[in-house]
Amino acid sequence: MRNGLSGYNKPSSSDLDGLRRVLGPQDVSTDRYDLLTNAFDAYPGELHLPDVVVWPETAEEVSLVLRLANEKRIPVYVRGAGTGLAGACVPVYGGIVINTMKMNRILDVRPLDLQVDVQPGVIYDQLNAHLAPYGLFFPPDPGSSKSCTIGGMIANNASGLRAVRYGVTRDYVLSMELVLPSGELLRVGANVFKSSVGYDVVRLIVGSEGTLGVITNATLRLRKLPRHRSTVAAYFDSIEGGVSVINAIRQEGLDPAAIEFLDRIHIELISKHSNVLLPTHECMLILEFHGYSANGVADEVKTAAEILKESGSVQIELPKSSQEEQRIWDARKAMYPSVTRATKAPITGDIIVPLSKLYDTVQKAYDLGKRYGVVVGVAGHLGDGNVHTNWFTEGRDTDSWLRAMKANSELVDYAISVGGAASAEHGIGIEKKDFMRTQHGEGLELMRRIKALFDPEGILNPGVMI
Amino acid sequence: MRNGLSGYNKPSSSDLDGLRRVLGPQDVSTDRYDLLTNAFDAYPGELHLPDVVVWPETAEEVSLVLRLANEKRIPVYVRGAGTGLAGACVPVYGGIVINTMKMNRILDVRPLDLQVDVQPGVIYDQLNAHLAPYGLFFPPDPGSSKSCTIGGMIANNASGLRAVRYGVTRDYVLSMELVLPSGELLRVGANVFKSSVGYDVVRLIVGSEGTLGVITNATLRLRKLPRHRSTVAAYFDSIEGGVSVINAIRQEGLDPAAIEFLDRIHIELISKHSNVLLPTHECMLILEFHGYSANGVADEVKTAAEILKESGSVQIELPKSSQEEQRIWDARKAMYPSVTRATKAPITGDIIVPLSKLYDTVQKAYDLGKRYGVVVGVAGHLGDGNVHTNWFTEGRDTDSWLRAMKANSELVDYAISVGGAASAEHGIGIEKKDFMRTQHGEGLELMRRIKALFDPEGILNPGVMI
Repeated sequence: MRNGLSGYNKPSSSDLDGLRRVLGPQDVSTDRYDLLTNAFDAYPGELHLPDVVVWPETAEEVSLVLRLANEKRIPVYVRGAGTGLAGACVPVYGGIVINTMKMNRILDVRPLDLQVDVQPGVIYDQLNAHLAPYGLFFPPDPGSSKSCTIGGMIANNASGLRAVRYGVTRDYVLSMELVLPSGELLRVGANVFKSSVGYDVVRLIVGSEGTLGVITNATLRLRKLPRHRSTVAAYFDSIEGGVSVINAIRQEGLDPAAIEFLDRIHIELISKHSNVLLPTHECMLILEFHGYSANGVADEVKTAAEILKESGSVQIELPKSSQEEQRIWDARKAMYPSVTRATKAPITGDIIVPLSKLYDTVQKAYDLGKRYGVVVGVAGHLGDGNVHTNWFTEGRDTDSWLRAMKANSELVDYAISVGGAASAEHGIGIEKKDFMRTQHGEGLELMRRIKALFDPEGILNPGVMI
Repeated sequence: MRNGLSGYNKPSSSDLDGLRRVLGPQDVSTDRYDLLTNAFDAYPGELHLPDVVVWPETAEEVSLVLRLANEKRIPVYVRGAGTGLAGACVPVYGGIVINTMKMNRILDVRPLDLQVDVQPGVIYDQLNAHLAPYGLFFPPDPGSSKSCTIGGMIANNASGLRAVRYGVTRDYVLSMELVLPSGELLRVGANVFKSSVGYDVVRLIVGSEGTLGVITNATLRLRKLPRHRSTVAAYFDSIEGGVSVINAIRQEGLDPAAIEFLDRIHIELISKHSNVLLPTHECMLILEFHGYSANGVADEVKTAAEILKESGSVQIELPKSSQEEQRIWDARKAMYPSVTRATKAPITGDIIVPLSKLYDTVQKAYDLGKRYGVVVGVAGHLGDGNVHTNWFTEGRDTDSWLRAMKANSELVDYAISVGGAASAEHGIGIEKKDFMRTQHGEGLELMRRIKALFDPEGILNPGVMI
């Protein structure tokens, strides 16, 4: 469909000269290597070469790039670190990739306000390292924290294992500077913790996957680092036990900062491929508690341990040192690397369901694995309903890949059918575009009209999400 | 401007017959008394009679009313309990008032999911009374909790004194059924705690003050009631002491569920007009702590008391019984009634600023009071930056009213100038329409385009907000 059927244009050589004049030649590349490294993200499904990659350093440069692209109807894809799992920055129709990695400054920390201003290319872990001396942190914590950018997190409404207590990126963006496809530069939102002053444009942009505008600056709300933390690990000999205890913990009114679930296949892979040996059981839970008071955290851990025992946990670990705690979290972090050592091409699922549907959903994943003859493991941030699956295929071009894709699709349909969502935190991108109709019904038309309002020429991320 | 200049029409007698056919004659009224009681809300500024009031009982009825209004270009205003403080449901151009008070059913509590489905006319206190036996609550807590409706809270993005810990209405709406001005019925959102599946239409509707669509049903996220609560009151002999301690408490990492501030004039009025006698000081703070663990709450209270003392508090009350705690909260709740006994026509301000600007903002309010010769008191949810003011005028048609309006306006401008917002929780309505440009700059055009996209004929709440 590229460069023709959709009416999009390739940048001409005079357009490229124009880009070089605006950005400086060092920030514009048509080098094959640069095109290739900006052609895909962590979604294994598709790869498309852009025509040119640009690295703007200011909002004004972004504005000029968009103005040119809008006039000439050249597609523009915005890219941070390329850690997205759904292909939201893959240049489906070619054109220009705006790479934000040179807009990577932490501009202003305001400790008293619990706020920070950042450029979009700031790396998550670097931001939190910078904030730690102030006793502050930005809570949403994606698995790709070492390399993902704040701009990408905002575009994707990223979250992670602490969302169960602290919420998601959407809850932490107070205001942003936004470049519309026309090149117009706007500041939206206000730097306060609540407001009632018209339409919430900020939260419309968060999670819009680069389809409405380009974020060139954002003010984030921060939280104080918790004074005390404590981790609990618990093992179960049945999936039902491990899953149902999650609801028991939430119904008790405990407020863990993480409720992680790993099933047998993941436990075994971690033991095999990492330097942490875990006891083999049907599943395990890892809980983390945060609080101001050591006594308060200890009380929550004590009750949690009681509930875990009553619910049939066969082994409970209450680490006595931060080294022992770290060991448990190292195991959790070794999960994806271990999976990718077991299969070169896993398909990673990301759905979310109401809490009462957790067990049925996990069971449904196993049933689908059996029906389609694909090995599947369940893991994830089950505490807020977010079920991740890893489908172990025999490679990209195998029949097992197709069967795993089908099984994963059916699981997404199932999640939507029980009131859940096709994606909790990985986004729609290219991967889940076909689920937008099932998810939203007629609401999809409304979203398309919103898209057309912001981007009448359709230059921003065409082929992605909507 | 009504019925003419703006091109809006009054409902004809055949339109009224049409409404009666759709809703039944008992749910359509042109009775003078009904028109008058639906002509204003708690905003003292303006009163406009509608032409007809309707009380639909289903989404389908709402849809048919909107379809008719859209075809005939008759203005439609949606009204809950009429407790709004900014005039957002006042029928500026007449036409139809949709009164939601007959859509007042709590449809489904799902304790395991921590969710409830409600119709828009459900009263806040009634909802929480219904949820209490499940150990659940809906946290946002406006001062009008006895009578305000959930629909109104959503339309206004209402909050209250617990927002500092629990957030605002926007954080608790998972999905909603929405009738667009065309009559189209949509379900938007998903019943899960996080998602990344396209544009966040739900949060665009929250806080849109009835200008985009009519909410006929909503699914709310709930929280477990805290096991333990504890209240602290502290008195100061200087405003600076009372305000600066708020930042000290937040910087310590304490997480109070309420941080309320009352200055001398409010303290004295409460002592005079309620049955609670408070010690007279320059200002007082009321803190509430919530938690799962009694020990944890006690530790937070202990640290808070130390900080209060170090910061110069001259008297600290640590209630020893729930009766003593209740007495303090009764005093807080007596504030507005006491104010309205002191002046028939107070002007109540509602702004929010970054936390580092709290003291300057409070000082600015007093300075403006002096400059304009109006007595002003400061109170409010200062813990999240939300400063309320009460301007004591000599009545609606007096010179002091005009001076208070000017002073309040300047304070709003000041809040915006330091990065804050014209309204934290009362909304824009009629009252603050003129501040939308100052608040949003060019962003206002974008909002107007969003309004036109949802409501091309401009029938929903014309004259309000945008």
